[in-house]
Amino acid sequence: MAHIDLQNDLPGIRGPMLYSPATAKPLNELAEMLLRDDDNSLSRGERELIGTYVSYLNDCFFCQNVHGALAGYYLQCDIPAIDAIKKDYTATDISEKMKALLAIAALVQQSGKAVTKDAIDNAKSQGATDKEIHDAVLIAAAFCMYNRYVDGLATWAPQDRQFYVDRAPRRAAEGYVEYDLTK
Amino acid sequence: MAHIDLQNDLPGIRGPMLYSPATAKPLNELAEMLLRDDDNSLSRGERELIGTYVSYLNDCFFCQNVHGALAGYYLQCDIPAIDAIKKDYTATDISEKMKALLAIAALVQQSGKAVTKDAIDNAKSQGATDKEIHDAVLIAAAFCMYNRYVDGLATWAPQDRQFYVDRAPRRAAEGYVEYDLTK
Repeated sequence: MAHIDLQNDLPGIRGPMLYSPATAKPLNELAEMLLRDDDNSLSRGERELIGTYVSYLNDCFFCQNVHGALAGYYLQCDIPAIDAIKKDYTATDISEKMKALLAIAALVQQSGKAVTKDAIDNAKSQGATDKEIHDAVLIAAAFCMYNRYVDGLATWAPQDRQFYVDRAPRRAAEGYVEYDLTK
Repeated sequence: MAHIDLQNDLPGIRGPMLYSPATAKPLNELAEMLLRDDDNSLSRGERELIGTYVSYLNDCFFCQNVHGALAGYYLQCDIPAIDAIKKDYTATDISEKMKALLAIAALVQQSGKAVTKDAIDNAKSQGATDKEIHDAVLIAAAFCMYNRYVDGLATWAPQDRQFYVDRAPRRAAEGYVEYDLTK
């Protein structure tokens, strides 16, 4: 049971978002811009993967499954493949640039101050642009917020991981701004 | 020097916000709603204090000084008084309800999962409403994002703390949405 009476029984972040629409609006607009905006050299799948990985590091079940399913949908890979990336992305065949961005995201998850010049230089040497590094840092930081919002209020989450996989195509079509929280 | 070329020399979060106006918009709208909206039983000073305390725990110099100066401005207390709250709020004369909300914020700073039923129950027993607990959790979570954005990109910050105190009245008048980032 959630720590407060959310006045609805929606899962994950949807519960507090329906409880507090005024804060949900900028939270959703931020996700839309960071994860879906077309003016971005990182694909939607790559950006969802950064969010998934940070949510995994923060042990947020709801977020890592919602966004892991979306990453799998966009990148056309299954959940075991996403799980392998979460567990040890260095051993997978994602691009060296993505590995370098995930390394930065993992440092941001610890603390802003944990990000090293070496990690940034490595990303640049793998071809990451300033904009891509900026976005990786802000996506990681934003998921440190979303994850804390979801778990700090003790929201519930469906435990069947297929639930998230089944919903991913619809979530990908809807985006983060125009969707109906209750559906 | 910042980790990427921000194409401006603005301090703290203003640098990346000017670099990336499309993400700055929801970031600022979230701050405006969380920290300034009038439909809130926590005062602006109390909400700034939660942000200040989380920024202190995250060791973010820029954020703890910007928001500490704003908290001091609203609460009509000086910086040594704000510093005393950051160092050990339990030994200060802030309300028991605020102490309970700062305790929740400190748990959120660690992790969403660190928030305990005991901490929530204590806040409720001190008179905190569900909405106040919701807002304390989301303010704390949001500062875990802002702090990581500021420090994850290695932005610079004026070291003279009086700089922030001097700007606080203007920042309080401007709010987070209508202000000119470059001034």
